[in-house]
Amino acid sequence: MFKKILIANRGEIALRVIRTCKEMGIKTVAVYSKADEESLHVKFADEAVCIGPAPSNESYLKMANIIAAAEITNADAIHPGYGFLSENAKFSKICEEHDIKFIGASADMISKMGDKATAKATMKAAGVPCVPGSDGIIADFEECTKLALEVGYPVMLKATAGGGGKGMRAVWKEEDLLKAWESARQESKAAFGNDGMYMEKLIEEPRHIEIQVVGDSNGKACHLSERDCSVQRRHQKLTEETPSPFMTDKLRDAMGEAAVRAAEFIKYEGAGTVEFLVDKHRNFYFMEMNTRIQVEHPITEQVVDYDLIREQILVAAGVPISGKNYYPQLHSIECRINAEDPYNDFRPSPGRITNLHAPGGHGVRIDTHVYSGYMIPPNYDSMIAKLITTAQTREEAINKMKRALDEFVIEGIKTTIPFHRQLMDHPDYIAGNYTTKFMEDFEMKA
Amino acid sequence: MFKKILIANRGEIALRVIRTCKEMGIKTVAVYSKADEESLHVKFADEAVCIGPAPSNESYLKMANIIAAAEITNADAIHPGYGFLSENAKFSKICEEHDIKFIGASADMISKMGDKATAKATMKAAGVPCVPGSDGIIADFEECTKLALEVGYPVMLKATAGGGGKGMRAVWKEEDLLKAWESARQESKAAFGNDGMYMEKLIEEPRHIEIQVVGDSNGKACHLSERDCSVQRRHQKLTEETPSPFMTDKLRDAMGEAAVRAAEFIKYEGAGTVEFLVDKHRNFYFMEMNTRIQVEHPITEQVVDYDLIREQILVAAGVPISGKNYYPQLHSIECRINAEDPYNDFRPSPGRITNLHAPGGHGVRIDTHVYSGYMIPPNYDSMIAKLITTAQTREEAINKMKRALDEFVIEGIKTTIPFHRQLMDHPDYIAGNYTTKFMEDFEMKA
Repeated sequence: MFKKILIANRGEIALRVIRTCKEMGIKTVAVYSKADEESLHVKFADEAVCIGPAPSNESYLKMANIIAAAEITNADAIHPGYGFLSENAKFSKICEEHDIKFIGASADMISKMGDKATAKATMKAAGVPCVPGSDGIIADFEECTKLALEVGYPVMLKATAGGGGKGMRAVWKEEDLLKAWESARQESKAAFGNDGMYMEKLIEEPRHIEIQVVGDSNGKACHLSERDCSVQRRHQKLTEETPSPFMTDKLRDAMGEAAVRAAEFIKYEGAGTVEFLVDKHRNFYFMEMNTRIQVEHPITEQVVDYDLIREQILVAAGVPISGKNYYPQLHSIECRINAEDPYNDFRPSPGRITNLHAPGGHGVRIDTHVYSGYMIPPNYDSMIAKLITTAQTREEAINKMKRALDEFVIEGIKTTIPFHRQLMDHPDYIAGNYTTKFMEDFEMKA
Repeated sequence: MFKKILIANRGEIALRVIRTCKEMGIKTVAVYSKADEESLHVKFADEAVCIGPAPSNESYLKMANIIAAAEITNADAIHPGYGFLSENAKFSKICEEHDIKFIGASADMISKMGDKATAKATMKAAGVPCVPGSDGIIADFEECTKLALEVGYPVMLKATAGGGGKGMRAVWKEEDLLKAWESARQESKAAFGNDGMYMEKLIEEPRHIEIQVVGDSNGKACHLSERDCSVQRRHQKLTEETPSPFMTDKLRDAMGEAAVRAAEFIKYEGAGTVEFLVDKHRNFYFMEMNTRIQVEHPITEQVVDYDLIREQILVAAGVPISGKNYYPQLHSIECRINAEDPYNDFRPSPGRITNLHAPGGHGVRIDTHVYSGYMIPPNYDSMIAKLITTAQTREEAINKMKRALDEFVIEGIKTTIPFHRQLMDHPDYIAGNYTTKFMEDFEMKA
């Protein structure tokens, strides 16, 4: 087992990793930028090394400084957390070259899954369903018609040069295809000077549902069921839950089986997440694979009684997994508490926390690196705490979240607590009736 | 279901009850003494009524004031928490007379279980094992000899007027009985002017292990397995765990069955705890029954995924229980964080908390009514927080407790955190090898 792990990250995830290391009797090294001198991950690690000034690319992304910190402290492994260098193939490789175990995916694996086209081709080869569509630019309308029949209506025509919805058309039946084809090409030509089009199946009422997997060095993988992350704002997840209110046992088995197949096909080692889009008919399509721990991993831990960070460390140390899959025994919800003003377009709100009181009691978990008096630096992402509630039913978990949000006191800055509180009262959320489009129509009440 | 519950208590247990009420959609009324104006239970309840000055017998024990508070706020039930009026037969009766549901035992039940002799006689009648011994004063040595054979060696001779160990003798074999009988009587006569003696079986290496039960209004009861509360100082529990490291499946079934038998025999309604002494041979003997929620109830909740306060409320509202028993699926430990100085004979240390930071993360639960800036009044008991860790194994729960204690910052007062931290490193504690005598030999390291 590793003797000392350096955590190449900051904030709550750095603290999260330190906690598990302590519980496992493994020494820890924190690294920090000048802006993070007061952070709890610095206080709670056995050692701490300053790796540069506040900007990420001069500290948390500065590979040479991190490797140097690992070498001077004799760390035998590096945990990258999420973000920063966690999915950086070069960093994974450099660690390996320095004989430091990277607790994450190999350089090769990161490269494979990091490139969308390669990832999709790999998943197709593994027999994992991907969003059907053209392989590249569509030659002409004849090919377009043929493709649409193959893919099946509804389809999306998309400009290869597109963006902001321009040159994009949803087509629901064959008689509308020609008009859409022509107008989309015209629009694209006008906007981008390029009328190349490709096609994808239109995912109706899409939900973002991901499957947590763990693979070991023997090429064996298991899954830990799903997380529903459909409540997103501009592709930023706001709250997640497991089980998904949209899930059925049959769908879970099918998605879990596909995710395990994907992981075993690429001989994936470590904790990873296979993200899918699920349409209203419960067809599911591979979106991407994250080769790292996810922000929202705690909800899975809560419902399967499993420490995912511990498992990452064990697997990295060569311990084989049992191979059995895990199914949710309870219901768990996470709200990401961000230093943002939900009444003002979620504008970041860094600054000093003048008073903090966290909720507690039965079924409440808090993961945070902040405290009363803590100064939130403006340099990094705005998440300051994860509030997780767990109960026997979804209704109870929501009720618990409401009362926990009501107890949560954070003064001195704006936070997304009021947003989550309103979300928990939203009839569609309560009904479990939400897609990735949910936030487009959401408005804060005064 | 109740519309509004008044909580006739203070501190963490008042907050605990408020939390569950909120989750159930039931309104709450807090009552408080002048000394508790700043307490969280006052802030988080829907309404709050001041019921008198700081001394308990002028506020939290003042039945008339509490009933008046319930009447002016239209509360339809009262939850008494633990301590104060929770096992007061008169108060239970007064509630009933005022048509306010007392969420606890009936006056009759409290009286029956509150008197040790009556409780023991009732339990004997129910077929629950009690500590064998004489029924009263032993007439002469002949009877003493006969009794000792019946009870079985080792036995304890105890002065009826005794106290502080005076007039008490442990006797391990018959040839030592006469000498013990004579010397104990002489000592008792000299110390108390009374040489009356009684006899009890000597419980070798006793452990305090209690069984949580819940009974409903149909006379049906179930058990939720055990809690080991053997780590006590002067009969004050310091830390508790479940499962007991001393437990076997066979013993749990036998004790659980006895506790359910006890509860059903008396048609017990509500949550209750049957406390047993267990000797080194795993014989168990009824000690007493607590007809209320216990301080240490959260560890049971953690390992069986069950909200005991919710269940108390449901049962009080007439909802029947399912009748199935619950067995620990995980391991959970509670450390009572008291405002006491463990380096100074656990002397109370009230005062203002100048800084508080609670631990968090996977498997950590905190129940507390205090916060940064809170003034601990000197009037009440010294417990300020319960720190509970839960994991798949006892070893992991201990390691989690260590790291959580290390993270816990409470400044401005002395607390028992250093005691618990040392306890978690004690080889006998780690080995699960402790009895109710454990603390007699425990010494704090500098």
